[in-house]
Amino acid sequence: MEFHDARLDNGLQIVAELNPNVYSVAAGFFVGTGSRDETAAVSGVSHFLEHMAFKGNKTYSADDVNRIFDEVGARYNASTSEEVTLFYAAVLPEYLPRTFELLAGLMRPSLRQDDFDMEKKVILEEIGMYEDQPSFTAYEQMMQTYFAGHPLGQIILGTPESVGALTCEQMRNYHREHYRAGNITLAVAGNVEWADVLDLAERWCSDWPAGRYKRSRTEAVPAVGTTIVTRPAGVQEHVMQMAAAPPADSRLRYAAELLAVAVGDDSGSRLFWELVDPGHAEVAELAYNEYDGSGGWMTYLSCLPETTEANLERVRTLYDNVNAGGLTEVELKQAKNKVSSRVVLRGERPMGRLSSLGGNWVYRQEYRSIEDDLKTVRSITLSNISELLEAYPLRQLTTAAVGPLTSLDAGGQDGPVSEKPV
Amino acid sequence: MEFHDARLDNGLQIVAELNPNVYSVAAGFFVGTGSRDETAAVSGVSHFLEHMAFKGNKTYSADDVNRIFDEVGARYNASTSEEVTLFYAAVLPEYLPRTFELLAGLMRPSLRQDDFDMEKKVILEEIGMYEDQPSFTAYEQMMQTYFAGHPLGQIILGTPESVGALTCEQMRNYHREHYRAGNITLAVAGNVEWADVLDLAERWCSDWPAGRYKRSRTEAVPAVGTTIVTRPAGVQEHVMQMAAAPPADSRLRYAAELLAVAVGDDSGSRLFWELVDPGHAEVAELAYNEYDGSGGWMTYLSCLPETTEANLERVRTLYDNVNAGGLTEVELKQAKNKVSSRVVLRGERPMGRLSSLGGNWVYRQEYRSIEDDLKTVRSITLSNISELLEAYPLRQLTTAAVGPLTSLDAGGQDGPVSEKPV
Repeated sequence: MEFHDARLDNGLQIVAELNPNVYSVAAGFFVGTGSRDETAAVSGVSHFLEHMAFKGNKTYSADDVNRIFDEVGARYNASTSEEVTLFYAAVLPEYLPRTFELLAGLMRPSLRQDDFDMEKKVILEEIGMYEDQPSFTAYEQMMQTYFAGHPLGQIILGTPESVGALTCEQMRNYHREHYRAGNITLAVAGNVEWADVLDLAERWCSDWPAGRYKRSRTEAVPAVGTTIVTRPAGVQEHVMQMAAAPPADSRLRYAAELLAVAVGDDSGSRLFWELVDPGHAEVAELAYNEYDGSGGWMTYLSCLPETTEANLERVRTLYDNVNAGGLTEVELKQAKNKVSSRVVLRGERPMGRLSSLGGNWVYRQEYRSIEDDLKTVRSITLSNISELLEAYPLRQLTTAAVGPLTSLDAGGQDGPVSEKPV
Repeated sequence: MEFHDARLDNGLQIVAELNPNVYSVAAGFFVGTGSRDETAAVSGVSHFLEHMAFKGNKTYSADDVNRIFDEVGARYNASTSEEVTLFYAAVLPEYLPRTFELLAGLMRPSLRQDDFDMEKKVILEEIGMYEDQPSFTAYEQMMQTYFAGHPLGQIILGTPESVGALTCEQMRNYHREHYRAGNITLAVAGNVEWADVLDLAERWCSDWPAGRYKRSRTEAVPAVGTTIVTRPAGVQEHVMQMAAAPPADSRLRYAAELLAVAVGDDSGSRLFWELVDPGHAEVAELAYNEYDGSGGWMTYLSCLPETTEANLERVRTLYDNVNAGGLTEVELKQAKNKVSSRVVLRGERPMGRLSSLGGNWVYRQEYRSIEDDLKTVRSITLSNISELLEAYPLRQLTTAAVGPLTSLDAGGQDGPVSEKPV
């Protein structure tokens, strides 16, 4: 493995991890924009724009784009989160030039009015489809409640109203502002020469407008509260809860990942053994979500409605025990094994490395090899976990519930909510 | 990459592809048994037994098995098909010994009566859950109709009746007969020494009973016909059709894979451009299924009920054109790119290599590296495709439909159905 980085004159960041021992190469553009960078008036525009990128540009029609990706056998896709819009493709090395041209073209779409009108229908259908999934609704409600008044509380898909009212002109303005070269990172992983990466970037990206969009990184002040969405036809109650956890640039983030796995992995964790294994709940998990300047402990519980309050109480007791006593040596070791194994298995494909490579650069301007990650994971001690829990105790501050229940005592802890990032 | 194979005295086959450049290792036991090896009286026993394997043995309880896999961070799972029951785990190299002991233990489960009774409920729930999925029901109905009277027509999960009536004693007998060492292939891929693989196999598998179950490989005689399952509440009609394709040991199988991709891949194929892209159907795909001694072209169509007959007619015209004119150079090239890219991307993880390694050995007693596969794919010509189409034309012999329709003229071609394997 060999790491390289560079920057074009217009500000485009380029990072590459070259590996001559693999048979494929993956390339991705990480655009530093997502729902948190939208105003309420254009809520959903980042995600809508991700779709529009595939509708063609001055060289290629929408049909061309899909046909050519297909012709070269590319595995390609795109995604939009609160903070990053990602476009990527993995391909045999001989087809990287052709694929790269297309992929770079996605960053400068034509944004034609008729494509916009047609795609709007697709987006509205997608919103409807997601709204049918209770866990998705619970996630959106939790984020909106917890991050009330903060940009992270803006939902990714937008609402039928915001997307319905969006104009093509608004999207073009948003694109002009947020897709400048200084706001984009090109990551490449796999079997390719560094000189070829530079050539491709120069050839297809150097005429992009320079400049960078500056995100507001104001720290979130968590809002305590419970939001209930009653759906009488549901069988299970879906509950999501959030509390403050380390932000993406915190040195505590590896400890946070290990703690989440030990306490709330989908198997073999404390929540698993105390809630899922005995049959109290269908799902009981804790995840660590990292954002730019903020972070969240996210609890997800799915169980029969009548058992919800008792289960939330079980979670509370369990979290109290963790906050007071930390983890055991055995739990920490097991979490390390799990996380190490995931790092390795994810990293064995160029597409897996791509997401690590781009994510580390976008959030922290650092390169981390698989060995770096394994070394850091191994180095975490029980006292790091205690330090983490002191700064960011496991709590159930904000609750969103979707299901048959019409009311819920989630026991929202309204004590001090002033955890500060470390 | 370095390939090795060996056989223990009791008949256990061992194959390994060693790769010192990766960070993980995967191991799997491919047991040469599945629903086609069951009698009607024990229908579903292979799949049920796969579940029971995780319930513990003379050394470990069920809790131990899951706990220890978790402790070492193993990614592990099992699956049952018509012909193979597979148990596998991927792990960091340092944990292979511990993981291997557990994995080998799965082959000799205790099959306790109380575990059996409890797990039977889980299996019955799983059957109910799958029956709710129309595409799954269509697949089962198609297999039962097409392979009527042939062992491949026996469904994997069994029926609520057959599983309900199954006794623990019947399962123990089935296990005794089908889990003998000569019926099992151990495949290992990734970062490990060959001597260590042999040591582990000797230590944990050499006391397994010798012998081999001999499968009936009678060739299937396709049954022509249409089966309809009416579900008025459904929105879409789900239709599956089958016709004869090359069996797993045919030299035509690579050509068959390429043809299926060109004609019926989920994007960029003829079916995609003629049915899905213009909005006639939600799904229109052709797959090539290979079995021991038989093979099947499987068509899957999902569309609005009232458009089903017109869409089946479109498929028929399209297949007639392919049968008469074959593929174009451009289509073949594109299919080669797609298949090559899949071979490579799948092969970049030890778990991906494991399935290729074990599958090739179980079906054909041969080792094929990624390069071997790529070379063969590249070598296929348009005249190989024509030869394939002559022996196995694309047809719609047998049809199963699940959805609102109460009747369907699937235009079942009742001409000669005597395609012979080449």
